[in-house]
Amino acid sequence: MLEEMGKKARQAAHELALATNADKSNALLKLADRLTAESDTILAANSLDIAAARQNGLSPALIDRLMLNPSRLAGIAADAGAVAVLPDPVGEVFDENLLPNGLRLHKQRVPLGVLGVIYEARPNVTIDIAGLALKSGNSVILRGGSETLNSNRALVALIRQTLVESGLPVDAVQFIDDPDRARVAELLKLYDYVDMIIPRGGAALHRFCRENSLIPVITGGIGICHLFVDESADLDRSLPVIRNAKIQRPTVCNALDTVLVHQRVAADFLPRLVGLLAQDGVTFRADPLAWDILHPLWDSVVQPAGAEDFDTEWLSLVLGLQVVSGLDEAIQHIALHSTAHSDGILTQDKRNAQLFIAQVDSAAVYVNASTRFTDGGQFGLGAEVAISTQRLHARGPMGLRELTTYKWVVQGDYHARP
Amino acid sequence: MLEEMGKKARQAAHELALATNADKSNALLKLADRLTAESDTILAANSLDIAAARQNGLSPALIDRLMLNPSRLAGIAADAGAVAVLPDPVGEVFDENLLPNGLRLHKQRVPLGVLGVIYEARPNVTIDIAGLALKSGNSVILRGGSETLNSNRALVALIRQTLVESGLPVDAVQFIDDPDRARVAELLKLYDYVDMIIPRGGAALHRFCRENSLIPVITGGIGICHLFVDESADLDRSLPVIRNAKIQRPTVCNALDTVLVHQRVAADFLPRLVGLLAQDGVTFRADPLAWDILHPLWDSVVQPAGAEDFDTEWLSLVLGLQVVSGLDEAIQHIALHSTAHSDGILTQDKRNAQLFIAQVDSAAVYVNASTRFTDGGQFGLGAEVAISTQRLHARGPMGLRELTTYKWVVQGDYHARP
Repeated sequence: MLEEMGKKARQAAHELALATNADKSNALLKLADRLTAESDTILAANSLDIAAARQNGLSPALIDRLMLNPSRLAGIAADAGAVAVLPDPVGEVFDENLLPNGLRLHKQRVPLGVLGVIYEARPNVTIDIAGLALKSGNSVILRGGSETLNSNRALVALIRQTLVESGLPVDAVQFIDDPDRARVAELLKLYDYVDMIIPRGGAALHRFCRENSLIPVITGGIGICHLFVDESADLDRSLPVIRNAKIQRPTVCNALDTVLVHQRVAADFLPRLVGLLAQDGVTFRADPLAWDILHPLWDSVVQPAGAEDFDTEWLSLVLGLQVVSGLDEAIQHIALHSTAHSDGILTQDKRNAQLFIAQVDSAAVYVNASTRFTDGGQFGLGAEVAISTQRLHARGPMGLRELTTYKWVVQGDYHARP
Repeated sequence: MLEEMGKKARQAAHELALATNADKSNALLKLADRLTAESDTILAANSLDIAAARQNGLSPALIDRLMLNPSRLAGIAADAGAVAVLPDPVGEVFDENLLPNGLRLHKQRVPLGVLGVIYEARPNVTIDIAGLALKSGNSVILRGGSETLNSNRALVALIRQTLVESGLPVDAVQFIDDPDRARVAELLKLYDYVDMIIPRGGAALHRFCRENSLIPVITGGIGICHLFVDESADLDRSLPVIRNAKIQRPTVCNALDTVLVHQRVAADFLPRLVGLLAQDGVTFRADPLAWDILHPLWDSVVQPAGAEDFDTEWLSLVLGLQVVSGLDEAIQHIALHSTAHSDGILTQDKRNAQLFIAQVDSAAVYVNASTRFTDGGQFGLGAEVAISTQRLHARGPMGLRELTTYKWVVQGDYHARP
């Protein structure tokens, strides 16, 4: 069955690659309209998923994640509309070059081809990914969480109707309508028909994809993120930056996990930081030097860091605290413990900022800003399909351009190679 | 053992990423000098490989491939010197952007990290790849063919001495000095320490890497290449282009495999083409329409094409011939049979040229030029580490820039995300 889907996706991709920006944008705007106009159908399907989730005893947090309502659906529709008006990366010409022998060379951006996207129980991702794939001229095979099977069925039916009405190939968006996990393993083997696998989920899903895929996998979304408070940092202004990085949305990958503090300012800064963030419900894991400063006054919220704590992505209101002797030790700590997602320095010292930028090799390196900015929307990409923490193809937030590749175009006058 | 090499390579990569262009270039120039100055040592080691190859009954062609002599060694040294003076891609700043909120954003080119390169019995590749890796700031773990073990040992010893003398990390270039094939499989599992696998060899090696690697693999170097002779092509000028594409170096991936001829010019063009190329020893596989035109006059060199012939990379003086009804059928044939390496059109019709460029999605798409130009040197990259026929990261010839990735640098004034 999956091989058949792959073949259809490949054929659709050939057609979609030649679609105009107007065709693709109009289809997305139409999709946005229908999501609102046909919200009853979608919400009815979603209520089946919610009922099943309740019956299966899923946690309220999980049920909330897969729940749709009119306002959430309006948000999803608005996002699809926003993607419609983004610039189309396909066809962009770059690296033009006239060679001494008269050959005219350029690169031309083309869609990647067929994407395979494996995600969890978030029905918004279905529209989100289908929209980004469509706009960038890629076919997509979607594999959503089994908890949202009914919602996804309804959403994908709507997308496919819209494709047909828009004169675009219907199989540009397909959906694996079978909760059996064996289908995921099959998808990962479709080397001839799928060009890129994007897992959207936790570390276990990424590992499974990497270990079982014949297709390149975009690994990402795991962030052990650091901020280093340098000796020269403006401490008053550092506090709200750290607070933002830690508590604005603690469950996401760009949330802060560890604060490194220069030893010369630690005794002043750490109690202030702990005092501020404790009000937000943050608890702390302190290395011995930080513990010495904070104990016993803050014992109610601070505990000594365990062996694995600095290698943990907290995804919750926990923050690691480590005192370092200076910039070099901070950079070493980051090299050892970071997942190379988002790491930053807070400093007034331009030289230290430059050294930090040069030596910290994370997807996003910050000076005097919150790690929470690592996001396609915040970086001005207009959208985000994933945040890559691997090194090939694309790093950090991936938008429409990162769903394309290029071909070389060589134009001559009956040139033969000497 | 390999895990230990991986760790050392990673550590060396951290150091090498910070090396200046001057340091890297000087090391390469020194390497070029030593290859000439110490040619006796290298040639003595190579003669051991040659003796073993003779004893093992290797073919003269294979023995020629692994043979070094003073002039070949001088060529290898010259290549290393040429890489030394290429521009360093590392540190390049691009996509600068000042966001409305005042955040300053840019991307900055950084080395990929650690490369694993698996290649066959060509000792020149050892220096070639080590030079490109060094210049682009990457560590490399080399795995050469067992037939060149002695040569590679001597060459890698020379490289590592040069690294030490140049103050660069010695483990930036390591060599798997064990002919056991199990080591290749081990290398492919070093996910934590190796960032990219580059197989340089035939289809079987590429498949093995793809199927056994946890690390992204650059698939490439397999080319079923086409030229389409359109109705409007200047036939006189098309002949030498096709001859160049077929016979200049028939054993390489950008050599021509199939000529597609518009039906309106086939009766005129095919006998001229066959007559010309037969003088070079080319033989032909003709589709039924081409066969009708060429039979029986050219039966000595033309035979009817078999079922697999148009899906064969010939790598020899064989050429497929197919008559097509026009541009659309030519494009369809290419979509079906090409490996998306290098495909071209010969035409005077600008509209057909544009349609061909838009619709043929190969790594290199040609108008009025030989497919033999698909090459890092010919495309002005100065060097070539591989020719990618996959779609992620890089397509077509890969030079120094394609051995890098980027990081995002975000500079603010204590910015928090709203």
